[in-house]
Amino acid sequence: MEEVKIGFLGFGNVGTGAYKIIRDNGNDIFLSEGVRLKVAKILVRDINKKRNVEVDNSILTDKFEEIVNDPGISIVAEFMGGVEPARDYVVSCLKNKKTVVTANKELIAKHGLELQALAKENGVGLYYEASVAGGIPVIKILAESLQANKIGEIMGIINGTTNYILTKMSEEGRSFSDVLAEAQRLGYAEPDPTADIEGYDAMYKISILSSMAFHKKVDVDKIYREGITQITPEDIEYGRELGFAIRLLAIAKKRNNTIEVRVHPTFIPLDHPLAAVRHSFNAVFLKGDAVGNIMLYGRGAGDLPTGSAIVSDIITACHQKDKHRYISFYNDEEGSAEKIKFNDDWESEFFVRLTVKDKPGVLAKIAGCFGKHGVSIASVIQKDRGKDAVPLIFVTHLAKELSMKKAISDIAEVEDVLMVENIIPVER
Amino acid sequence: MEEVKIGFLGFGNVGTGAYKIIRDNGNDIFLSEGVRLKVAKILVRDINKKRNVEVDNSILTDKFEEIVNDPGISIVAEFMGGVEPARDYVVSCLKNKKTVVTANKELIAKHGLELQALAKENGVGLYYEASVAGGIPVIKILAESLQANKIGEIMGIINGTTNYILTKMSEEGRSFSDVLAEAQRLGYAEPDPTADIEGYDAMYKISILSSMAFHKKVDVDKIYREGITQITPEDIEYGRELGFAIRLLAIAKKRNNTIEVRVHPTFIPLDHPLAAVRHSFNAVFLKGDAVGNIMLYGRGAGDLPTGSAIVSDIITACHQKDKHRYISFYNDEEGSAEKIKFNDDWESEFFVRLTVKDKPGVLAKIAGCFGKHGVSIASVIQKDRGKDAVPLIFVTHLAKELSMKKAISDIAEVEDVLMVENIIPVER
Repeated sequence: MEEVKIGFLGFGNVGTGAYKIIRDNGNDIFLSEGVRLKVAKILVRDINKKRNVEVDNSILTDKFEEIVNDPGISIVAEFMGGVEPARDYVVSCLKNKKTVVTANKELIAKHGLELQALAKENGVGLYYEASVAGGIPVIKILAESLQANKIGEIMGIINGTTNYILTKMSEEGRSFSDVLAEAQRLGYAEPDPTADIEGYDAMYKISILSSMAFHKKVDVDKIYREGITQITPEDIEYGRELGFAIRLLAIAKKRNNTIEVRVHPTFIPLDHPLAAVRHSFNAVFLKGDAVGNIMLYGRGAGDLPTGSAIVSDIITACHQKDKHRYISFYNDEEGSAEKIKFNDDWESEFFVRLTVKDKPGVLAKIAGCFGKHGVSIASVIQKDRGKDAVPLIFVTHLAKELSMKKAISDIAEVEDVLMVENIIPVER
Repeated sequence: MEEVKIGFLGFGNVGTGAYKIIRDNGNDIFLSEGVRLKVAKILVRDINKKRNVEVDNSILTDKFEEIVNDPGISIVAEFMGGVEPARDYVVSCLKNKKTVVTANKELIAKHGLELQALAKENGVGLYYEASVAGGIPVIKILAESLQANKIGEIMGIINGTTNYILTKMSEEGRSFSDVLAEAQRLGYAEPDPTADIEGYDAMYKISILSSMAFHKKVDVDKIYREGITQITPEDIEYGRELGFAIRLLAIAKKRNNTIEVRVHPTFIPLDHPLAAVRHSFNAVFLKGDAVGNIMLYGRGAGDLPTGSAIVSDIITACHQKDKHRYISFYNDEEGSAEKIKFNDDWESEFFVRLTVKDKPGVLAKIAGCFGKHGVSIASVIQKDRGKDAVPLIFVTHLAKELSMKKAISDIAEVEDVLMVENIIPVER
């Protein structure tokens, strides 16, 4: 019998989930996988804190050294979150020949490449399935099931909090601030919700996924990012009339040698598989040149779903202990086959919502502004004719984002345009 | 550089797809995976047949011996389908220390266990991702991403032909035979469609998935099977009024130590993720005790999607060449932890559609038949009151299938019941 001793760094929500899974399913894991997992030591801030899981106090420690210097511990699972001190600890563990399993998206998005190099140098593994989309095995699928494909596109709902908020706003016609307050009350949103609602969380995750898919490090500063705070029930209602649902999407595309990666609220057709993803569920939609469209759907957060990914990585690490696999970033190497460029002037269809005075000639003036910057109009809806201030909604054909910005800036100057209410990209 | 020589047994649709992927993406695979794949020999019936892919004729052979006896070939991909001679060939290859990758669901469902034992004995691998749901990596996810979970339930749309037919029937109100004829004309259904429309194809696939998920061989004769030939536009229409969509589902459940596995047309709620799976797409919905609900969606057939799974397995086999992984069937072993039973009297809610004479008292008589066999009624819809023959639709609460059969047999004897039109299980 092979017993594998594991050290935990942190014991919050996900750590507790992983602990429970090993406790409850450890025997089945032994029967099917041939490895006996044992949580040998857990780093916590306060050993005497009351916890919502029963745990032998003797395995709790507040000294990192007791884990990093324990020669019996071969795998360390990191649950601290954030860059420091997590990075410092992970580096020490890798240098001490311990395989690291982590749920830390910010750490992997910002330092994954150097941590992987360090792991490789020390002959140990670095696993991070839990860092993206909780229990959904999208990392493994990209690395080990779609290797025969050129991945052309990723579209993901990879932040549960914002999907919960947008679903509630859509289905109940409520305002952003109202639903956010409720989500905070229910514990679905953090007291400081910035990382979720401003798209940082999704940005870290799409950085990881796109880097893997394109075999090229996609730094977070290469990613266009926009949150959901400006979305109103009016946008959602007019979008629905046009056949669209709203989602915060993380999008990565590669065409020829050009990559674009962005996170923003997006309208998608109501019959798109991603439009059926409601509440806090996550889903990742991928396009491969061989496999075609594929979608993975499940719980993107929570103690047990994310714990499932952690324990799966631990088991995989046990099986690969003499031969850990590493993601290849061959497009970052000297003399690489492709010269990959990042495209910061991405193209999309756009939904544009204005409030205008209902006067003859206003539509012509606005159309002129679009035309001047090469943006062509696919459809127009004019509402509530005869009132002083009326909504005017456009959907454009494919247009460059910079051209759109210029057109909108001109439109804002048109005399009878009272307000540029919102501009939302449309994907199909 | 490691060059891996592969032999193909058969060169139909999927074989051609795998060939094209290796030809077109081989260099990328080399860059990211470090293995150079080479199709060294292809077994065909007729070397001179015109093919829809350009291939060097010198690698074609009509002699199996040229593949099985070639010491340079380390991996053989089998595309013949059916049990014999595929089984015979696969056995020979395994005995000659060649790893086998296959898309053959019938072979794996019927002989997977013995073939895996033979592979293990010979230190080679047996891989069959392509045998279930084409390009969707459900085999790998069960084996290598959900290992920490006890899987309680699988519900799959794993036959594209029947899903295409049911989607068309549902969305266009057309009859089964009409849509089947169209599907045959378009090449979506075989000239002899029995394997698809009678549920055999789905039965083989759910046998494979449930055996893996429950670590216990689920023989095909343990699986309840019913095809879609009896489904009518009327069933679909009344189902929709009740909030249901119809799908041919392959269902496997494990509760405590009892397993039930079945394939039949099923009503599911219109907002169930599987209800959004249209046309020839496949999806597999899984419930794990840690991960919760998870769904995988994609192309379940086709040359390139299924080829994607084949080539992925080939790459995995290259990486694991000294240490192939095998599925553990620990619940089949002597003295296994659990005594697993198969449940052939499964439980479900049921939709029951009758045609009755619209007379006072008929409902009471029918309700009496249900009651006598312990089947309780959740809802009743009576249509077109006042006509001679009217539809009467019931949805039951959870009931045993055998009790339902007895109740229906009694109901058929009630004087004013003109016809028992259909009985369709409901899952939620």
